[in-house]
Amino acid sequence: MPAEDNFTVTPYAVKGDINYDRLLDRFGADRLTSEQKTRFPDPSHPLVRRDVFYAQRDVDPFLDAANDDKPHSIVTGRGPSGPMHIGHIFPFYFAKYLQEQTGTLVYIPFSDDEKYFLKNKSMDEISDYTRQNLRDLLAVGFDPDRTRIIVDTADADVVYPLATAFAKEVTQSTVDATYGEPENIGLSFYPAVQATHLLLPQLVEGRHPTLVPIAVDQDPHVRVCRDIAAKKRYDVRKPGALLSKFLPSLEGPGKMSSSDDAPSILLSDDRETVTDKIRTYAFSGGRTSIEEHRSKGGNPEIDVPFQLLYYFFEESDERVEQLAEEYREGSLLSGELKEFAAERIAGFLEAHQARRSALGSLEEELSAYRLTETERQAARRQAGYPDNALSQQ
Amino acid sequence: MPAEDNFTVTPYAVKGDINYDRLLDRFGADRLTSEQKTRFPDPSHPLVRRDVFYAQRDVDPFLDAANDDKPHSIVTGRGPSGPMHIGHIFPFYFAKYLQEQTGTLVYIPFSDDEKYFLKNKSMDEISDYTRQNLRDLLAVGFDPDRTRIIVDTADADVVYPLATAFAKEVTQSTVDATYGEPENIGLSFYPAVQATHLLLPQLVEGRHPTLVPIAVDQDPHVRVCRDIAAKKRYDVRKPGALLSKFLPSLEGPGKMSSSDDAPSILLSDDRETVTDKIRTYAFSGGRTSIEEHRSKGGNPEIDVPFQLLYYFFEESDERVEQLAEEYREGSLLSGELKEFAAERIAGFLEAHQARRSALGSLEEELSAYRLTETERQAARRQAGYPDNALSQQ
Repeated sequence: MPAEDNFTVTPYAVKGDINYDRLLDRFGADRLTSEQKTRFPDPSHPLVRRDVFYAQRDVDPFLDAANDDKPHSIVTGRGPSGPMHIGHIFPFYFAKYLQEQTGTLVYIPFSDDEKYFLKNKSMDEISDYTRQNLRDLLAVGFDPDRTRIIVDTADADVVYPLATAFAKEVTQSTVDATYGEPENIGLSFYPAVQATHLLLPQLVEGRHPTLVPIAVDQDPHVRVCRDIAAKKRYDVRKPGALLSKFLPSLEGPGKMSSSDDAPSILLSDDRETVTDKIRTYAFSGGRTSIEEHRSKGGNPEIDVPFQLLYYFFEESDERVEQLAEEYREGSLLSGELKEFAAERIAGFLEAHQARRSALGSLEEELSAYRLTETERQAARRQAGYPDNALSQQ
Repeated sequence: MPAEDNFTVTPYAVKGDINYDRLLDRFGADRLTSEQKTRFPDPSHPLVRRDVFYAQRDVDPFLDAANDDKPHSIVTGRGPSGPMHIGHIFPFYFAKYLQEQTGTLVYIPFSDDEKYFLKNKSMDEISDYTRQNLRDLLAVGFDPDRTRIIVDTADADVVYPLATAFAKEVTQSTVDATYGEPENIGLSFYPAVQATHLLLPQLVEGRHPTLVPIAVDQDPHVRVCRDIAAKKRYDVRKPGALLSKFLPSLEGPGKMSSSDDAPSILLSDDRETVTDKIRTYAFSGGRTSIEEHRSKGGNPEIDVPFQLLYYFFEESDERVEQLAEEYREGSLLSGELKEFAAERIAGFLEAHQARRSALGSLEEELSAYRLTETERQAARRQAGYPDNALSQQ
């Protein structure tokens, strides 16, 4: 998919940020309005109220269903090509928060096939990361009655038949125009698998509003799927999208990635490592000398430790504003802000890691989150496959 | 795949037929030599000794293994987009004959996914045909210990992971160059599924020679798969191909097809229907009047009833030659030849239909031919997937 790395984007400087508006124009999505924000659960999540999720497609049906206690679902996936870093976990904790507030279904597809197509890694390596990443997902603590985790190659009995159905609706030229010419025929096909991910909750549970929280550059995936749904061959609504700005990498604005050389904070990092990475690598909006900082102040809008707090790791709006103010006026030093951020992040990770360590065997823990045979059959049936395809007379 | 319908080809006029030679040049395959023919089991099958299978790639390793009592396999599949006609069943009876003679493994993939991608039919219709066609395959009477039947969407738990592995090895431009631009992304991906079919016996049973008996125009499928095998990423030999001429349609030379409007003899046709179709539709090499036929003689080389006997339905070489001779000299009339052919075909079909009727429930009958859990795991392992991918610690 096309990266937007040539934009330098910060979450804090969103108001009037012409790049993000231009992205919306390009994708044809709309801003998330204040009215829509009020219809998210109260207390609202920092990612919503601080405009990290800043745009949307069709968010209203999802919010209506959530507020009317009708079926609704979130789909948020993981591509298991490496260890997970803090940038990867936000959407999952956001989904868990929504699940606690509204009871939303949460579907979590693992695209091990796509990662195999994309990366120079063996299936064995991808499979190792899948298991590691699954433990991190399980540590989030989703409600197993309302959450399903799907691994494309391990759940191929349902993923491939559904992707087959949807593949017929997508031309190669649509894929070329949307993603550029694919490197291999696995990537040519993958948009049908992605559509399967996004439509699966409705195929299993019946027609209802689905919302897909993703970074804005992932929007094309949703559009391909919406085009399939729009043909009305299947009894599904077009999935909606909740579009976020890019999360900053440690070294400054842009997309975080665990696969690049740039260091990032892993979910497995201990307090010392977190502190060390923040101290050493986190891009600072402070001044070059303490004296200059005290007199002229720093810039929180480009300061990565501040942004991490702003995005996710500092719940209190008052505290965030206080930090920004003290930073701007120079009373809060860059090093102090880094220590504060490291403290918050390490605290979050220690809690996450404790839950991860408390898990039993992967097989055991995962079993409650896998599609049941009845659910698999329901999905295949909704995609046009007869029940007991090989046993009817 | 590119049809070669612009060639008019007859099996009888093979010697020196420049079209078939040109096809071999184009595909880069070789003629089946007399020496190779002698290494097929004795008594040899009419399709081999009468040059219907006239060309090959890498047939020697298969013949060596067959003669040395070492593992070897045949892959011959079915695209379930309609009822089966007599042209579809030849390769399966040929495979069964080889299995009886040499003990070859026979793998029979059902490409219901491809047919869905290609045809304007619902998955329900394709699934109906799959079940009907499966009963016809089961009626052939393969040895269940040495035969496996795979249905792509029903065996997706093994087909999709393997196809994922192989898809990475095939570029979209290879597919475009080989098949032309695909209509949808299912067809873009399908060559990886086809490669899965052809490599599956080796992935399940270990490296050994596989032979794929197919009409010469299907050769590109084999070549894409051979290119994957040639990369030596997997412990497999390049599958060989046994290439046949096109079987004639009732209305004359060219490819038979049950989906076109042209009538064809279905495996379910009774004696009366067979006789009627042959009388009414079979293209004749006879003369327009009995008098002219008696004096000038007919042409068996373009006579469809004769060709059907020649291909498959008359076992005796002496009888075939006698018929040709009498037809050429005019003592055998077109109507008489038609009656003789109808008799032979109806006899064959009645035996086939009797075996089909004697089958129990599809589920029960099919179960002995499906991949076991151990075989599925072996195949996934050989394709690079770890055992128990979701339960290892």
